[in-house]
Amino acid sequence: MQHFWAIQMADWLDQIKWTEDGLLPVIAQDAQTGDVLMMAWMNAESLALTVDTGFAVYWSRSRQSLWKKGETSGNQQKVHSLLLDCDGDTLLLKVDQIGGVACHTGRRSCFYFALESGQWQATTPVLKDPAEMYKS
Amino acid sequence: MQHFWAIQMADWLDQIKWTEDGLLPVIAQDAQTGDVLMMAWMNAESLALTVDTGFAVYWSRSRQSLWKKGETSGNQQKVHSLLLDCDGDTLLLKVDQIGGVACHTGRRSCFYFALESGQWQATTPVLKDPAEMYKS
Repeated sequence: MQHFWAIQMADWLDQIKWTEDGLLPVIAQDAQTGDVLMMAWMNAESLALTVDTGFAVYWSRSRQSLWKKGETSGNQQKVHSLLLDCDGDTLLLKVDQIGGVACHTGRRSCFYFALESGQWQATTPVLKDPAEMYKS
Repeated sequence: MQHFWAIQMADWLDQIKWTEDGLLPVIAQDAQTGDVLMMAWMNAESLALTVDTGFAVYWSRSRQSLWKKGETSGNQQKVHSLLLDCDGDTLLLKVDQIGGVACHTGRRSCFYFALESGQWQATTPVLKDPAEMYKS
């Protein structure tokens, strides 16, 4: 059975069109409100872990390591559903955002610089103090 | 005045963290329903054109050319707002999806393969016949 499961796993993972670096762009969306929370990357291992654990695990390109979302901050993302796009090269991850904050700045969503009058203007309030989130 | 405007343009474009290839991943979201419609790429020229014209213009990596979304299919995207993320390397484009269909398969959204029981299962109906959309 373990062998059969491994083959199945490889199958759905193999159907993804990974980048040359073996990565996949992933859009995290709040399953309840529809808010787009962030965009990050996964490799095959992090995607398999995401499915296995039911919580979002990304691949940090800057640290070149697995990034269990919320491990430090507590802002975990419980997986609601996974949707691959028509080209098989982008994933939409619908999540329940634990604590309501996805961004390291303490905002709900990472997308908060609106282009207004030719300038990027910060919108949306800081809900949690980053110093509190990352004090550990 | 033209000169001043050009400097302003360069400024907000320069604040974006482009990839080494000079590209930016862009998530298109329906401004009314919150549906995530697609993910595509822009270069500086296509983003400037998007802002100037008020309609989404992407950069086709496969064709290496500007891609005026909907030019052939009619599925244009009228820009509602532009939101850059905390890292300055991903854009969320809120749009009014003309005709209600974003995907070249005739579906509303490109994200329609749901992972269920270890397989990508096509969900959501085809709303427009692709043969009709692309008959030119």
